[in-house]
Amino acid sequence: MKKIYLDYAATTPMDEEVLNEIMPYFSEKFGNPSSVHSFGQEALEAVDKARQQVAGFLNCSSSEIIFTSGATESNNLVVKGIVGKVQTPKSNPQSFIPHIITSSIEHHCVLNSCQAVEKDGVEATYLKVDKDGLVSIEDVKKTVKENTVLISIMYANNEVGTIEPIAEIGDLLKEINSEREKSNLPKIYFHTDAVQAVNYLDCDVNKLGVDLLSLSGHKIYGPKGIGALYIKQGTKIKPIQHGGEHEFKMRAGTHNVPGIVGLGKAISLVSEHRKKIERIKNLRDYLVEEILKNIPNAFLNGSKEFRLPHNANISFKGIEGESLLMLLDQEGIAVSTGSACSSASLEPSHVLSAMRIPPEVAHSSLRFTLGKDTKKEDIDFVLKVLIKKVGKLREISGM
Amino acid sequence: MKKIYLDYAATTPMDEEVLNEIMPYFSEKFGNPSSVHSFGQEALEAVDKARQQVAGFLNCSSSEIIFTSGATESNNLVVKGIVGKVQTPKSNPQSFIPHIITSSIEHHCVLNSCQAVEKDGVEATYLKVDKDGLVSIEDVKKTVKENTVLISIMYANNEVGTIEPIAEIGDLLKEINSEREKSNLPKIYFHTDAVQAVNYLDCDVNKLGVDLLSLSGHKIYGPKGIGALYIKQGTKIKPIQHGGEHEFKMRAGTHNVPGIVGLGKAISLVSEHRKKIERIKNLRDYLVEEILKNIPNAFLNGSKEFRLPHNANISFKGIEGESLLMLLDQEGIAVSTGSACSSASLEPSHVLSAMRIPPEVAHSSLRFTLGKDTKKEDIDFVLKVLIKKVGKLREISGM
Repeated sequence: MKKIYLDYAATTPMDEEVLNEIMPYFSEKFGNPSSVHSFGQEALEAVDKARQQVAGFLNCSSSEIIFTSGATESNNLVVKGIVGKVQTPKSNPQSFIPHIITSSIEHHCVLNSCQAVEKDGVEATYLKVDKDGLVSIEDVKKTVKENTVLISIMYANNEVGTIEPIAEIGDLLKEINSEREKSNLPKIYFHTDAVQAVNYLDCDVNKLGVDLLSLSGHKIYGPKGIGALYIKQGTKIKPIQHGGEHEFKMRAGTHNVPGIVGLGKAISLVSEHRKKIERIKNLRDYLVEEILKNIPNAFLNGSKEFRLPHNANISFKGIEGESLLMLLDQEGIAVSTGSACSSASLEPSHVLSAMRIPPEVAHSSLRFTLGKDTKKEDIDFVLKVLIKKVGKLREISGM
Repeated sequence: MKKIYLDYAATTPMDEEVLNEIMPYFSEKFGNPSSVHSFGQEALEAVDKARQQVAGFLNCSSSEIIFTSGATESNNLVVKGIVGKVQTPKSNPQSFIPHIITSSIEHHCVLNSCQAVEKDGVEATYLKVDKDGLVSIEDVKKTVKENTVLISIMYANNEVGTIEPIAEIGDLLKEINSEREKSNLPKIYFHTDAVQAVNYLDCDVNKLGVDLLSLSGHKIYGPKGIGALYIKQGTKIKPIQHGGEHEFKMRAGTHNVPGIVGLGKAISLVSEHRKKIERIKNLRDYLVEEILKNIPNAFLNGSKEFRLPHNANISFKGIEGESLLMLLDQEGIAVSTGSACSSASLEPSHVLSAMRIPPEVAHSSLRFTLGKDTKKEDIDFVLKVLIKKVGKLREISGM
């Protein structure tokens, strides 16, 4: 059976060039980069090169990049590490409770990290979003308090592909922080989870005005089990994984050399892949248009304007998304309901709920995410099967 | 130049069979195991198989195994997760401060995790060891207090190869815990960091009597960036990495499928490699004997009796270990001073210090760790170079 993968937001196949690059680091150049001898130094050179590749992409210094086991760890580190390092003002040490601002549509690793520190007494505000999934800059401004120490807003949403106004929030924070400096208030650090954005959007940390940025290997045709975190020089942050003095003392644990090399290579290939964005966007637009034209009571969720070019999140009224997913899977088509990370949950997507989409409509939604190898004929096949299966399911339910 | 690697305790080359096993999971079977569709399920099956391989090796249920990014993460999770979940006794909630017992020769990821929770008010005792690096069971017994909740003792030391009496401590704890149960005192959980032991020692968790056991992929001819933690059913432990509901809700983050598959395969090959233990031990004994015979003022550190078969840790009086390491490296021979993880530190090894070895002797020590591919001719070459270089260094220093 021909297989069509339309779940590139969940994970991506590793690029052949990435695989070629990492191959020598398994059994030949296998040294531990912390070892002083030549086996170690050879591995360290590879780690340094990858660090430069990531830094080049983000337009920062390579001493501002640390490698982690993935974006989940990066995001945990940001939330727990920033509040863990908060300096209590000397004037009133007892009363200082750090405050975090995030959005209600973040990935669970941000939301659940915030909830974890809330249990330790930290305050958190989960900003609402509009019906397109957009965070309002006005809301950010209104929510900032004296004790705010971190704002974490994702660059692009993993479920609906909505692109958040990161650079604009960055500009706002520059103003706010310059005022706060005069009043001796703690700096508000700005973090963005850019996992879904790296393939498609400008990730220059200076243009974005962020202090911290998380990214992941396996979403960009690189390896699983590897991620990175940009930490702007001077950022006060506490490590969460203790042990050896790896990664500028910010993240203990033997370097995952093949993973790191693969992440570096994958990120160096992004500019190449971006040449295909227009093609992907056209295919995605074609998919959406044909669905809306041929399937009654189907709706696109999320922003039309501020949207990742490969994402289509569509509700099929009266249908269980899960059932449709299964029927498509039987025909070799891979899509998802919500994110892979919450596939075990029966709750409606927290993202769609936050966009005020009623639970029954949220449950009828499927996410199609295209990739660099998606072809027009794949989309035509998906459309053909989809139209048939939606009809079948609606027939069963008597709709 | 011929290269001789004698630093297998720092990391190992990945076995060819392991590499063959993981290859399909990069670009073909690349699914995210949390995805419901066939790409995801295929990856999930591979993860499940690896979990069974690890569980089989440890003689436990596969639901008692979680995968982590490495032993550093596993050990952090144990220390922080056990004290994080401690139930304060209802009778006196304010006064209950959890107490941890560990040894002064643990890996830094255990020691520094203990120090991190000490900052949060947890109490920790770092047991002394004898001149061989052995923890005394009597000391463990004497140190247990009403508020003790965790004992973490490594199975075998990474620097000197000393094998700790884990099964004996396990027996002791069974008695102690059965008494505590009667008095309504919290159970004391027993953890062992088995990273260095897996290749050589019986890791049956029932025979050892442990509730938690950490292991790592890259020390057993498997991949870097992957580890596992055995958590005995019923153990009360809190996750430290928050996000999706992966790993029985104990460890969030997309599964590192190739890493997990590789760890499973590597562990399934351990019994095969163990056939070579006798050969490795004989080579190690030959190395030690020849050094002690041919180089004056050289001493073996650690236990002769309770020692990993591949480890030789030797002090060369009057010599900087680092300088000798460099000279050997120039001849293609890779050894280490202390552990790779603390190679950036100028402090004398905390392990040798704990064994009451004076700083100047500790600084003169080198660790040689052999592996399954080490040959007699390698050892002969190392001996030849070593004798020459020690002589040269001592000549320079005028000893």
